[in-house]
Formats: sequence, C-alpha cells, structure tokens
Amino acid sequence: MALGKRIAMIGSGNVAWHLAPALENAGHIIVEVFSRSKKNASALVDRLYQAEIKEDLDFSDSTAELFIIAVTDDCISEVAQELALPENAIVVHTSGAQSLGELGYTATEAIGVFYPLQTFSKSKKVKFEEIPICIEAEDKDTERVLLTIAKSISNNVQLVSTVDRKALHVAAVFACNFTNHCLTLSEQILNSKKLDFDILKPLIIETINKGLELGPSNAQTGPAKRHDFQTLDHHMEFLSENEELAELYRLFSQNIVDNYPID
Amino acid sequence: MALGKRIAMIGSGNVAWHLAPALENAGHIIVEVFSRSKKNASALVDRLYQAEIKEDLDFSDSTAELFIIAVTDDCISEVAQELALPENAIVVHTSGAQSLGELGYTATEAIGVFYPLQTFSKSKKVKFEEIPICIEAEDKDTERVLLTIAKSISNNVQLVSTVDRKALHVAAVFACNFTNHCLTLSEQILNSKKLDFDILKPLIIETINKGLELGPSNAQTGPAKRHDFQTLDHHMEFLSENEELAELYRLFSQNIVDNYPID
Repeated sequence: MALGKRIAMIGSGNVAWHLAPALENAGHIIVEVFSRSKKNASALVDRLYQAEIKEDLDFSDSTAELFIIAVTDDCISEVAQELALPENAIVVHTSGAQSLGELGYTATEAIGVFYPLQTFSKSKKVKFEEIPICIEAEDKDTERVLLTIAKSISNNVQLVSTVDRKALHVAAVFACNFTNHCLTLSEQILNSKKLDFDILKPLIIETINKGLELGPSNAQTGPAKRHDFQTLDHHMEFLSENEELAELYRLFSQNIVDNYPID
Repeated sequence: MALGKRIAMIGSGNVAWHLAPALENAGHIIVEVFSRSKKNASALVDRLYQAEIKEDLDFSDSTAELFIIAVTDDCISEVAQELALPENAIVVHTSGAQSLGELGYTATEAIGVFYPLQTFSKSKKVKFEEIPICIEAEDKDTERVLLTIAKSISNNVQLVSTVDRKALHVAAVFACNFTNHCLTLSEQILNSKKLDFDILKPLIIETINKGLELGPSNAQTGPAKRHDFQTLDHHMEFLSENEELAELYRLFSQNIVDNYPID
C-alpha cells in the first residue's frame, strides 16, 4: 500500500476514539491530538502509538498532512476558522449533518468530509472495515487522497454529496438513535412494573433480522398495522400516567395506521 | 415425554401459522383448524400432518383436548362465546393485550393464556425453542397442562399475570413494532432521495448489538442525546414537507433530550 499519512486528530469524542486507532492499524500515523478536554485527549493518546497532545490550534509547524475535525457539529466551523495550518494541509470534518461549506473559512482550499456512518460509544468496539465511509471533497486531488485513506480502513467507501449526506443522516437518526430509544422506552416500561428487559431480547433480535431480510415495510406487525384500535386504546390508557410517552405512542401508531391502509 | 395433546387451532393468521407446526414437531396432534378465511385455513392445514378443516365453531364432537384461539384481539371474546366444546376441554387465547377474563363466557372453566412473545410473519421462519411463552391460567390444573405443553416447544416459559402481560405487550410494541417502523421511515427517507437502504445495514446491526450489550440507555447516541439543537433544527427543516414525520421527529427528539439531561 501507499505510505501512511501523517494525521492530526482534533477532538477526542466517540468518533475520534474509534477512528484514530483504526487509521493507525491501517498504517497511518496519528502525530497529534487536540481536544478541549485534556483528560479525554490524554485517554485517546494512550490508545495510540506515538501521538502527542497538542495544547492549542496553531498547527503551523505540524508535520501532519491531514487534519480531522471530529468535534460536536456546532463547533466545527469555529474550530476550522481558528486552525493555523502548515502548507498543503487537507482538512476534513466527520459530521453527517454538516455541509462541506462549514469548512469554507479554513486556511486551506483542500477541504472535505470523511463521515463514518456508524454509532460510536467508547465502551463498544467496532469493526471499521464494515463501516460505510461517505467522502466528499472540494477538488479532485483531495477527493483522491480521502478515498485512498478511507479505503485503507473500510471496504465500503462511497462518494456522497452534502445534500445526500443530510438525507442519510436524518435516516440514520431514525434507524439508529430512535430505534435505540424505542428499546430504552420498552426497558423503562418493564422496569416500572419490575419486569426484566431480558424477556424482550429474542423479540428484538428477530425484529431486526426480519426487517433486514424481508425489508422493514414487509416485516411490520402489531396492533397499529392490524388497525386494532381497541388494543391501541388499552395501550394509551396504560401509558396515560406519562403524557409524553402516551403522545409518542399515539403519533407512532397513527403513522403506522396511515402507512398500512386496510382495503 | 408425556403423550402429545390433541389440539384444535382456531385462527390461521401469523401466530397459528408458526405455532401449529411447532406443536406438531413437539409430538402434539393438530386435529382441526377453523378460520373465517377458508383459503388461509387450507394453507395452514397443508403445513400439518393430519389436521382437517372445521367449517364452524361447534366442536362438541371434537376429539381435541386443547382449543387455541389465535384470532385478532377484538374477536377473541366473540369466538370464545360461540365455541361449543366437548367435555374437559381447555381453551386458551394467544394475545399479549387481552386479559384472561376475555374467555370468561367460554363453555368451560379451564381457561388460560398461551402468549408467545415474538413477531410472526408467514414468510419468515422462527425458532420456537427461543421464544418466551407467557402462561396464565384460571386454575392450577390448567396451569400445569399449559406449562407442560409450552415447555415442549420452548426453553423459555414463564408464568405472567394479565397485568404484567399488558405491560409486556406495550413494551413489546415499542421494542418491535415501533423499532421496525423506524427502519421503514428511514428507508422511505432514503428512497425519497433515491438512496439505497443497504448503506444503513451495518449501522442497524451495530445499534441492536450495542443496545443489547451495553443496555439501551447506555448505548444512546445522536444529536438529541448531545442536545445539538442546531442539527435537530436542520433535520426538522429537512422533514418539513411531511408534517406527521416532522412531528414524530420533534417529539422523539424532545423525549431523548428529556431523558438525557446535560449537567
């Protein structure tokens, strides 16, 4: 493979936590880590071979060629503007929601997006080679470099525009964040009656297997799909102590009813 | 093992479709199948060894010992009242949402609930031995018989009262029906932009694996969890063409924000 890139990681959250070691494993070198949180920066550096903690955003003397901004969405633009860079630096962010234009005021024209489409938590290992990485770049040279780096850690690399990435990100919120929150709510409902969440595990596993095998719209079951309004009413009554939860139940069921008209 | 029971299946929907063959495989005999839909009854009988189609609910001459009512929730009570039964018959329904009392006007006092906690679609095979079966009965003799039959097809049999089963069923709607609908909505969002649902599959699999491994409330990620209101606003704007979907997004995100206060 091509020689590894020298990379600076800006941020030490969930994405940086998993992305930086994956890049190292593919032969790249993380030379520096910057983070507002010294503690998190230090913990991330401990996972890496030779990275050093950088105390500020003046990277003008850095030997890094690629700067990865993996910070909260609403800080990207600010961080990018503050960055002092060496010559020929490439700067990317890792956000699904933010446009390439967020990097418009960066001190380089070689900007791009390097968005790994996955849910990251520090306490859970992930296999990077299976994670789709969505690449976008301002120019063809940058695009080529980013594609090469992405392909060195993943078998699923795609060019995705800002507009499409935004749709993808909204879809990912439904498929991941809302799906997981449904599990949390079901656990809360069981715990409120001192019942064990474990009893739902076979159901949850089968739900996802079936949804992926048949396609989710073919796999839908349940009282709302059957337009079983009596059961929906009973459930609403059961949830009536928690107004927000009851409203969520109502709206969700209504949406399912509307999606599956009965002739 | 004890001799197999002789069983009549009333209903030919998704539950009956999978439960009847599972009972046969465990050594029981499905002697008759009744269904409002002749076509479905005939298709189910074709999956079984020696079952015959029953044309009405007069089972007074039947050789069956157990009658399983696996029909839509709001028909259970009506079907149970119409049933003419032989002596010593046991009657159960398979619903998570309906009380044992739904069978109160049945022509036997040996009534119970036999609720397999799973999502069933005819086109997807399931492993019955992993499916939790929730048993409830009016008397101890019936309970004993139902437990024995349930244990002949599943390794996960539990006694669950009507009250607890109702909580379980509401939780199952969140964990299964709403979860699957989240996937359907994400597919619709992608399709509206001509993007392929396949790109989300690694994310979906990881979401569930992580939720079950860490517990869902520890596994939550995303803009609402981070209180990233800028991204939430962008997403609401993206969804603004579909009012119901936007409202669902808003309510869901609000509920996540409320569940994860930031100090």
